[in-house]
Amino acid sequence: MITIYAEDHAAQSVETEFYRGQWVEAFETPLRAERIRAAIEQSGLGPIVPPRAFGADAITAVHDPDMVRFLEIAWDAWTREFGPTPAYPNVWPPRRTRQIATARPGAELGRYVVDMSSPILAGTWTAARAAVDCALTGAQHIMDGEASAFALCRPPGHHAGRDYFGGYCFLNNAAIAAQSFLTQGAQRVAVLDIDYHHGNGTQDIFYERAEVLTASIHADPRQDYPYYIGFADETGEAAGAGTNLNLPLPWGTGTERWLEALDTALARIGQFLPHAVVVSLGVDTFKGDPISRFELASADYIEIGRRIAALGLPTLFVMEGGYATDALGVNVVNLLSGFDQSRPPSAAVRI
Amino acid sequence: MITIYAEDHAAQSVETEFYRGQWVEAFETPLRAERIRAAIEQSGLGPIVPPRAFGADAITAVHDPDMVRFLEIAWDAWTREFGPTPAYPNVWPPRRTRQIATARPGAELGRYVVDMSSPILAGTWTAARAAVDCALTGAQHIMDGEASAFALCRPPGHHAGRDYFGGYCFLNNAAIAAQSFLTQGAQRVAVLDIDYHHGNGTQDIFYERAEVLTASIHADPRQDYPYYIGFADETGEAAGAGTNLNLPLPWGTGTERWLEALDTALARIGQFLPHAVVVSLGVDTFKGDPISRFELASADYIEIGRRIAALGLPTLFVMEGGYATDALGVNVVNLLSGFDQSRPPSAAVRI
Repeated sequence: MITIYAEDHAAQSVETEFYRGQWVEAFETPLRAERIRAAIEQSGLGPIVPPRAFGADAITAVHDPDMVRFLEIAWDAWTREFGPTPAYPNVWPPRRTRQIATARPGAELGRYVVDMSSPILAGTWTAARAAVDCALTGAQHIMDGEASAFALCRPPGHHAGRDYFGGYCFLNNAAIAAQSFLTQGAQRVAVLDIDYHHGNGTQDIFYERAEVLTASIHADPRQDYPYYIGFADETGEAAGAGTNLNLPLPWGTGTERWLEALDTALARIGQFLPHAVVVSLGVDTFKGDPISRFELASADYIEIGRRIAALGLPTLFVMEGGYATDALGVNVVNLLSGFDQSRPPSAAVRI
Repeated sequence: MITIYAEDHAAQSVETEFYRGQWVEAFETPLRAERIRAAIEQSGLGPIVPPRAFGADAITAVHDPDMVRFLEIAWDAWTREFGPTPAYPNVWPPRRTRQIATARPGAELGRYVVDMSSPILAGTWTAARAAVDCALTGAQHIMDGEASAFALCRPPGHHAGRDYFGGYCFLNNAAIAAQSFLTQGAQRVAVLDIDYHHGNGTQDIFYERAEVLTASIHADPRQDYPYYIGFADETGEAAGAGTNLNLPLPWGTGTERWLEALDTALARIGQFLPHAVVVSLGVDTFKGDPISRFELASADYIEIGRRIAALGLPTLFVMEGGYATDALGVNVVNLLSGFDQSRPPSAAVRI
């Protein structure tokens, strides 16, 4: 399996993050991607290549163009007024307010960001844009006939909605890739989100779309981020009614129960007859993860890869979360190797 | 004019606040209320009395009971999980999410708070509750036949909406007092908000109510807090259509233009024939205010008081903002004295 990696990811880097009312050592760091890259190099999984450069159309196909434009100019606008300090929100819109542009960078930031974990830095746009290119390059490999690809995206993307961002995410790499399959002629695409945290941004983007099935296995939103969204009764609306599957699980969920949920999601994806699958790949389901509370073991990821492979569908893996830095490499390589060793011989996209 | 003051206000006290991505010296401090109290003592304006204790009904008459319950238990719930550290939000609901209770104090905080300037401290509930009692005691004086009263509320209240709080505010003292007039039989009440910042919470609470006219003179929300809301085209909805008047003014607004807006608001209030007027009294319109950009002089507040008095209506003043600490006393006393010296002899509530 080919891996697409861009060193520009390192432009998004903070020492600390604001967590439970205090500044703590950052969980989401450049070292995460470097550890995964190093493990893939050592594993013999396949080549690691840089992304190709794609235009903005693929991004605005799923995101509000005003938000994309804001992300691109945010650092300049912020530093012009407030100096070269990370842009964190200190105000955001109350309920029942309209979407009206303001003249102030802090207020504009507040219109789009939904938590304190995604500051705008000098390199944020560069890093987020490179992650999108990784995802789109991976999708292109699959359109060109590969059975699978791994987009080693960082910053992650699945918490970025149509017109909001947060949860370490800025642009929704997986959603952009899924849409790119459709744009190039695929009739149906499935997104399987196995990150510990609900893929709220992806759900938001495709919630009214019949041609995208979104399935997410995640911590109960009553207990964990992103809260507020990711409940089992959210099943899609309008044309998308019935095309969103949420499988929330409680703190402490272990291998057996998690794999049952995976089987449920895979069965639904199989029935949907998608032309391709995008896997939002988080490994914060690992028992050693510092901010998560599931209990998967490293060996479990091999089995997860096998079961996804059994779908027999072209599959793009897009990196999302996972914060047990020392275990990230083995967990990701286990999953991708499990997939690779059991994939059926022919799984190219047929559109 | 009687002043109602509670020393419990000092229980809400922070050294720093999060502003433009950094921690800076706090603008909203206990010293503000102490300076105003001292100036009133020296002025001979009238007695300063403590508030009477009122029940919760007057609060839940305008606020979501779930939010009120949260404010009451928030400090205990937060410290039980995270220790005795101020409760600041690090996550809040994205657009298009439902109102669903979570099991985590940080997520619950995010459901209700809309900025970084209103942390929950050990004494927040005590202070906010005392401010409400000050406002309700002032309203009671007027119901009992006084022509005016000054509720020296702190924390302020006008940024607290039906189910959200922020902007140094927790409970909307002015709205609670306005509602108390109605509950006791008044048919119509007007709220005049002359704070530099739009009274978004008050607008939110009464936006669909025919019996409350809300009028606010404030900085253009494209330029200043609370942003997002406070535009001239927000005129009320449903039964409240036509009962909200916003008079946004640009940075740099001086005496003449500000007083023109005041006359517009007062004319509208006069036409409304309210039984009482609640004035959300901010003096951050002062040219020396550190976070505001209007250009009123201390002497202007005398004239403002006079013009409000010319309505000839029972008037409850409720303290809101103003951050030029050294000038707060003279500015507030000027306004109240200007009112007192020109009020018509008989202005008791007739319901």
